[in-house]
Amino acid sequence: MRLASTFFICLLLLSGPSVSTAATPEEVIQDVLWQQVEAWNRGDLRQFVSSYADHCTLVGSMISETTREQVLAHYQGKYPSPGARGKLAISGLAVHRLDGRVATVTGHWHLDREPAFGGAVGGVFSLVFELIDGSWRIALDHTS
Amino acid sequence: MRLASTFFICLLLLSGPSVSTAATPEEVIQDVLWQQVEAWNRGDLRQFVSSYADHCTLVGSMISETTREQVLAHYQGKYPSPGARGKLAISGLAVHRLDGRVATVTGHWHLDREPAFGGAVGGVFSLVFELIDGSWRIALDHTS
Repeated sequence: MRLASTFFICLLLLSGPSVSTAATPEEVIQDVLWQQVEAWNRGDLRQFVSSYADHCTLVGSMISETTREQVLAHYQGKYPSPGARGKLAISGLAVHRLDGRVATVTGHWHLDREPAFGGAVGGVFSLVFELIDGSWRIALDHTS
Repeated sequence: MRLASTFFICLLLLSGPSVSTAATPEEVIQDVLWQQVEAWNRGDLRQFVSSYADHCTLVGSMISETTREQVLAHYQGKYPSPGARGKLAISGLAVHRLDGRVATVTGHWHLDREPAFGGAVGGVFSLVFELIDGSWRIALDHTS
């Protein structure tokens, strides 16, 4: 009996708290975006674009059916220095899961930048995330 | 035998050509948009907004989590006359189906309008379509 009790106490201790700490898909998706912002702000553009799908659509003033590598080249060309990249912030994130493997995210973005580099800019964005090989990736990015 | 032959000939005639003429989801979605443009240009805003989901997200200069009825009220207020509505055209549609019930559409829009009503305007849009109760509806509309 004593051995059995010890066994069950060990089992309880090993199983940890009964409240699940697993992140929801919505939390995982938001985390992808927070990591993206951190990557931008430390100048790691390769990490920044790792959130994009291999093939994705970017909508800004134009519409581009592109690849992650092309997105990287675009950002490296347009934001080559810390001054040009400024400090990125996002806010007001709203995640809507449409089904098990597609979700949309909307939010506001703000780039704090010195006047010499074009000054502060900002606006809104909508993203379509797709679950690809177990990772949530941006399939469509419309920023305006 | 003769009766049987006649029966089979009738069956062949009734079954029609072997090539399927059923529209693909991509064609159905594009058709929803063409019908929307036609509805706009004849001033039928209720028909125009029938493409939206009951609850949807509109992204323009702001982000609105809204309903189809609120979208209708918005358009009726902003575009009350044929002059204000002008003539809508869309082009360069690209439909990407993400799975059986979600698709994205990107394209260009142009509103031809007299200077007195603000003149011609245009830009790009991205839409997220969702298959709801057998109909493709716009769950997210980002127009810029």
